[in-house]
Amino acid sequence: MLKFLRKIFNKRTDYNKLKKEIAPVPPKFINALMDSINLNLVDKTQSLLSDLSSGEIANIIEQLDASDRKKLIFFLGSSIVPEIILELDKDIRKEIISVVGEHTFLNVVSKLDTDDLIVVLEEVDEDKRGQYLKLLPKKSQRELVKKGLKFPEDTAGRIMSTNVVSVSASWTIGKTLKFLRQKKELLPDDIFEVYILDSKKKPVGTLNLNTLVRSSTNTTVRDIMNTQFKTIPIDTDQEEIALGFKQNNLISAPVVDKSGKIVGQINSDDIIDIIEEEAEEDLLRLSGVQSGHIYSAVLQTIKSRFTWLLINLFTAIAASFVIAIFESSLRQVVALAILMPIVASMGGNAGTQTLTVAVRALALREITRANALRVIGKEFVVGAINGLIFAVIIGTIASYWFEMPLLGFVIAAAMILNLVIACLSGILIPLILDKTGVDPAIASTVLLTTITDIFGFFTFLGLGTIYLL
Amino acid sequence: MLKFLRKIFNKRTDYNKLKKEIAPVPPKFINALMDSINLNLVDKTQSLLSDLSSGEIANIIEQLDASDRKKLIFFLGSSIVPEIILELDKDIRKEIISVVGEHTFLNVVSKLDTDDLIVVLEEVDEDKRGQYLKLLPKKSQRELVKKGLKFPEDTAGRIMSTNVVSVSASWTIGKTLKFLRQKKELLPDDIFEVYILDSKKKPVGTLNLNTLVRSSTNTTVRDIMNTQFKTIPIDTDQEEIALGFKQNNLISAPVVDKSGKIVGQINSDDIIDIIEEEAEEDLLRLSGVQSGHIYSAVLQTIKSRFTWLLINLFTAIAASFVIAIFESSLRQVVALAILMPIVASMGGNAGTQTLTVAVRALALREITRANALRVIGKEFVVGAINGLIFAVIIGTIASYWFEMPLLGFVIAAAMILNLVIACLSGILIPLILDKTGVDPAIASTVLLTTITDIFGFFTFLGLGTIYLL
Repeated sequence: MLKFLRKIFNKRTDYNKLKKEIAPVPPKFINALMDSINLNLVDKTQSLLSDLSSGEIANIIEQLDASDRKKLIFFLGSSIVPEIILELDKDIRKEIISVVGEHTFLNVVSKLDTDDLIVVLEEVDEDKRGQYLKLLPKKSQRELVKKGLKFPEDTAGRIMSTNVVSVSASWTIGKTLKFLRQKKELLPDDIFEVYILDSKKKPVGTLNLNTLVRSSTNTTVRDIMNTQFKTIPIDTDQEEIALGFKQNNLISAPVVDKSGKIVGQINSDDIIDIIEEEAEEDLLRLSGVQSGHIYSAVLQTIKSRFTWLLINLFTAIAASFVIAIFESSLRQVVALAILMPIVASMGGNAGTQTLTVAVRALALREITRANALRVIGKEFVVGAINGLIFAVIIGTIASYWFEMPLLGFVIAAAMILNLVIACLSGILIPLILDKTGVDPAIASTVLLTTITDIFGFFTFLGLGTIYLL
Repeated sequence: MLKFLRKIFNKRTDYNKLKKEIAPVPPKFINALMDSINLNLVDKTQSLLSDLSSGEIANIIEQLDASDRKKLIFFLGSSIVPEIILELDKDIRKEIISVVGEHTFLNVVSKLDTDDLIVVLEEVDEDKRGQYLKLLPKKSQRELVKKGLKFPEDTAGRIMSTNVVSVSASWTIGKTLKFLRQKKELLPDDIFEVYILDSKKKPVGTLNLNTLVRSSTNTTVRDIMNTQFKTIPIDTDQEEIALGFKQNNLISAPVVDKSGKIVGQINSDDIIDIIEEEAEEDLLRLSGVQSGHIYSAVLQTIKSRFTWLLINLFTAIAASFVIAIFESSLRQVVALAILMPIVASMGGNAGTQTLTVAVRALALREITRANALRVIGKEFVVGAINGLIFAVIIGTIASYWFEMPLLGFVIAAAMILNLVIACLSGILIPLILDKTGVDPAIASTVLLTTITDIFGFFTFLGLGTIYLL
């Protein structure tokens, strides 16, 4: 035991390197940490963590099992850094509240910038939110958070930071720098640009820190400010904002209200989070998971996957009803039963391919009214050609396998029809859902496989009944 | 006709607003542009585009059909902005080369920063690359590009910008600002921080522009520089880099060679592109598309989807072979044929859910050696519980539908077994692939559905044969 303890204590080998290089925290380190948690070595645990960034600690907390996690949070107590809480998933934030208590939790997170604090509080259950707000120590902050939470989720109003720096167009760079130095206590941590406003507080120009530091002190702001900047209307959806940042290579942009007055700003680091979030959402939704983390508890995992499986069960039963129509055909030509999953499976796969590309293209605004018809036409052709190719292959195989040329013809015809329908559904379903305001990632896959299954079984068994009996 | 032309010319309605607000280019605008292309109105076309950013123009070029695109590129000719080329997909870059010729193309892109130029040239076929390099006008640039292209794709060496700004730790902020003003012609367009190096050119500190502009002129760099920065070893994979940026909330980081010497830097705008790219890659690969754009030509689209469909055809045939084993059972109890797709389909869906969450978690380094076993255990439990629930539902339905209680028992048992196998496969397949160095997104889905199909048919028909005949 002593030897084991000593081993742990001496394990400070490559943590120095760890500190320096950009690299995931090594499993060895996590194991050492878990050991020290299990041995209740509070100081050791804290000193191990002191080498890491908030994001890394959050990542480790998410990797621990529930009991280790609880212990670790207990060790950290009120000394937990608010940035760690910000980086954690909302379910784990709830665990933190249950360990440290609401008072401590709100005291800690109140040290965050208002926009980050809103991120933490927007995920609290709505009936508890009012109570939590009251626990925030500073009144001014409480008001700002309340205001921010009034904007719809995932819009500029929620995401923006309200702390903007504005300077006058008539100032020199020298005066501007002096101003920034004087106000440094009030400035937000990260600024990439300062804004130049007119008398109605509408932005008329932006001045990038890059330009600022390389301009001579007697230059006037007016002469070097950028007037070709983009503004973000306060109700803009975060997906549009991320797209605009990418297409215009922005690092920062002012948020304006309906009258055009500046009310906040959004920076490129917010965009990184949005892009991650949107991509993950699409991926999970396409595969029928409502929200998923590898570390979610069992019950929660089951819940997040149940709805989709239940819907799938009923669509599968619907497909079985279609098969049941052809009961007597199946009895007479058992080869139909053996081959029927092939047609359905190929349709499902071909459709999913189109669907994924289409959902992605819609998210990136690559499909618009200007090219929708052309894209639909293309998918029709792709489906038909792929259908033809695979019809020849499977037709030949089926003919020889069951020594029934007519069966080969039937499965070949069903294959062409089903792949055309699959590719057309793959593009039309997300287009129609998008048009009606439903997120195409949510319902597309289930609609698609329902169509390809039912249509696949129906054409194959139908054609089989007509030509083989 | 005249009226139509006049209508186009007067259509300058809301382009001014377009210029200001962050929002996708409206379809109306794209239609106006297409009209002017079709009417060969070169000047009109160019003036329409002059309102847009490079990224927006690239997005529109990708939306046009091939012939409109060719015409537009022809209109733009050598006046095409290099940043547009940078934003375009590689296939469309090839189209540009075929319209404007290699000389013009390389002349245009040579105006890009070296790291961006590498992005453009790395996608040129390798046998042509040498020839293209020779066409670059400046020798110094040619050497830098050659050097950059020697680093493996998707590593720091390829992505980094080699133009870094370093200052001395003993300088005052005043001197630093003076230095930046004097060197402004040589500075890269976007800098977020400057580096402080030791005598061996190893970075010992970083100085953020944010800190720079708010510090008084007589402060010494040494006193305010950040020494807790992260460095990026030159061979680091881009996925790790993106992860490190997120976990450490970086906006910029120095790239170092094996001896620790600074050789370049990577900024957060590069990270946005990497995150997009990696998320898209995972999404497409999981759905069996090698590389997909909604605007790819028909033949190319067919090619990108063919391999996966062919593999799927053979795994579907393999599943049919399993069904064929039970030919006589199917003949005697046709209900088995009617119900068998349900078991396979539920397995496929439950497995895909687990798979997607697992692939995502691997990409985000949320599964490590520290928690792998626990996650596998969890998926086993999730599969078993979901299996039990759906076994009861489908067992009851099947019993009543075919008035055979034993059939209900058979499908219920098969459902439990298959959902357990599906969830376990969903986690084990990506873990094993990742361990063996294969991208789990590429092969996971096909392996999974093969297992759930074959296992699903085998257990259901096998149990049916044992208990129902």
